[in-house]
Amino acid sequence: MRRILLNSLFAILAISIYSIANAADPLPSWSEGPAKKAILEFVAAVTDKSSKDYVEPSRRIATFDNDGTLWVEYPMYTQVLFAFDRVKKLAPQHPEWKTKQPFKALLAGDMKTVGASGMKGVIEIIMASHAGMSGDEFEQEVTQWLATARHPHLNCLYKECIYQPQLELLAYLRANEFKTFIVSGGGIQFMRPMTMKAYGIPPWQVVGSSIVSEFKTREPKVDFIDDKAGKPVGIYEHIGLRPILAFGNADANMQMIEYTRAGAGRRLGLFVHHTDADREYAYDRKSHVGTLDKVLDQADANGWIIVDMKKDWKSVFPDR
Amino acid sequence: MRRILLNSLFAILAISIYSIANAADPLPSWSEGPAKKAILEFVAAVTDKSSKDYVEPSRRIATFDNDGTLWVEYPMYTQVLFAFDRVKKLAPQHPEWKTKQPFKALLAGDMKTVGASGMKGVIEIIMASHAGMSGDEFEQEVTQWLATARHPHLNCLYKECIYQPQLELLAYLRANEFKTFIVSGGGIQFMRPMTMKAYGIPPWQVVGSSIVSEFKTREPKVDFIDDKAGKPVGIYEHIGLRPILAFGNADANMQMIEYTRAGAGRRLGLFVHHTDADREYAYDRKSHVGTLDKVLDQADANGWIIVDMKKDWKSVFPDR
Repeated sequence: MRRILLNSLFAILAISIYSIANAADPLPSWSEGPAKKAILEFVAAVTDKSSKDYVEPSRRIATFDNDGTLWVEYPMYTQVLFAFDRVKKLAPQHPEWKTKQPFKALLAGDMKTVGASGMKGVIEIIMASHAGMSGDEFEQEVTQWLATARHPHLNCLYKECIYQPQLELLAYLRANEFKTFIVSGGGIQFMRPMTMKAYGIPPWQVVGSSIVSEFKTREPKVDFIDDKAGKPVGIYEHIGLRPILAFGNADANMQMIEYTRAGAGRRLGLFVHHTDADREYAYDRKSHVGTLDKVLDQADANGWIIVDMKKDWKSVFPDR
Repeated sequence: MRRILLNSLFAILAISIYSIANAADPLPSWSEGPAKKAILEFVAAVTDKSSKDYVEPSRRIATFDNDGTLWVEYPMYTQVLFAFDRVKKLAPQHPEWKTKQPFKALLAGDMKTVGASGMKGVIEIIMASHAGMSGDEFEQEVTQWLATARHPHLNCLYKECIYQPQLELLAYLRANEFKTFIVSGGGIQFMRPMTMKAYGIPPWQVVGSSIVSEFKTREPKVDFIDDKAGKPVGIYEHIGLRPILAFGNADANMQMIEYTRAGAGRRLGLFVHHTDADREYAYDRKSHVGTLDKVLDQADANGWIIVDMKKDWKSVFPDR
C-alpha cells in the first residue's frame, strides 16, 4: 500500500516536472506557422469540455501512416530493403533463384532489372522473403536486421531514421488522452517489432498489410493490403472507430484522410511534404515512393494541412 | 498546471481509497478455492520484479472469450437472436423469404426447421441480417436492439447478462497493468458497440469474426472466422503478442488456451464450467452451445483451471 502511494507520488512529480519544462511548448521541434497552429487549436478544441467540438477521450483516435510520415521512406521503403537482404541470405537454399527473375537480377545486384519487374516482381520478392516461418521466427529475423541495418545516405540506423517532430506530436496527443495508431501499407509483422520502442505504440495499435497466417506458419499469400482504399477498411476492422486526426504523406493516404474527415464534428487531416533536400529529401509529384501529387492539388479546397518539412520542422531527426 | 496537479492528486486519492477498500480481496465475488488461488498466485508472480516469472507490463496480455465466458450464451448466442429479430424486421422488403428456407421457417416461428437447416442455414440468416449497410448503420442497429432486448428466462437485458466475477477479474488484471482483450467467435462489429461500457474494453481490443467490408458497405461474405484454430490466428494478426492468460468456456477455446500456454514462462489457462442451474444454467458435454467435453477430459493433464460456476462464484450477475 505504502509502495503504491510512493510510486504514485513519484509519478506525479515526474509528470509535474515534465509539464513545467514543456509548458511553454509541447512541440519544440515545430516552427511557428499554420501547421503547428492548426494542431494546437485542434487539440485545444476537442479536449475542452465547454467547446462544441469536445470529443470524449475514448473517441480521440489519431492514425499515422508510417513510411515517410513517421520514418524515412526514401530512396526505398525499409521493408523492401529488408526483403532484398533476406533473399540474399536465403539464396544458398534456393538454387532455382540463379535462373529465375527477379531473383537472378537481385542476386547479381542488377537493380534496374529488379525495378523493371514492377510491383509483381517486388511482391514475389516480399513473399519469398516473408513467408515459410512462424510469426515468432519472423519477428526475430526483423529484430536482428533492424539492429544493424543502416540507411545508405543518412547517418542513422533505419530504426533511428524517425522524425523528432512526430515523436513530440505523438507524445502530445497521448498526453491529451488520444490513442495513437499506425495505419500503414507496410507489413504489420514487419513494423510491430519496432513500434513500441520507437514510437511508444504497442503492437495491437499497429494496422498494416498482412499475409495469410495459418495456426503456425506464414503463407506466401497476401491477406490484406492496407493501402489507398484499404486503409479505411483496415481502420474499420481493426480499430472500430473513425479517427478524428489522421496524418499521411502521399496520395495513397488520401482515402484515410477523407474517411477521417467525413465523420461528424471537428477533424484534422495532415500530410508531410518532403521539401528538405539538405536534412532529408525533396520529392513529391513524380517520386517512385510516396508520390504526393493529387494531394497538393486538392489540399486547399479540402482543408488538408500540408506540413512543409523545410519550413515547419526546426529539426528533423532526434539528437544522437 | 495547477489543474493538472490537482487532478492528479484527486486521482491518487481515489485510487488509494479504492485500494484500501479492496485491499482485503480484489475478487470479492470469487469463493476461496483452487481457481481463485491460481489467479491470485499467477498475477502475484508475473508482477513481482524479483520473481523468475516476472513479465514486463507491455507483455501482460489477457484474452477472454465472450459468449459463455463474459456474458450468457444459453439457450442461444445473443448474436443469433439479434439476427432472427432482424430478419423479421427486414421481411417486408424481402418477399422472396416467404418461400425460401430457412427464412420461411424463421418467419413462421418454426424453430425446429430453422435448427434443422444447421450451420449453413444459420450463416445464411447471419449474412442476410448483417450485410448491405455501412458499419455506422450496423452499429446503430445493434445498439438499438441491445437497448431493449431481454433474455427469455433470466431477469436481465442481454447486455446486462454479464458475469460479476469476470468484471472483477478484468478490473483486477487492468489494475495490475494487464491489457484485456476479447477474442470471440462472435462478430467483431456486433460486440464492439457494447464492450467498452459493459467490460471497459475499447473496440480495438476486441478480436472477432468478420465479414468482408469494402470502403462503405458490409458485404454478405465471411472474411474471417475467429473460432477454434482461427483464434490463435486472430490473436497473432490483431494483437501481435501471445497472451499470458486466456479464459474460455468451451472446446472451441482449446486452441486459444494451448497457444497461450505454449509460450515461454508462466501462463494461465482457464475455462468457465456452467454448473449452476439455479442461478444460470448447467450444460457441458452435450450442449448445442458452448460444448465443453474434451476440455473436461484433458484439463487435469494439461494444467487448465476449471472454474465451477456453482462452487467458485459467490454471485453470478451484478446487483441491479
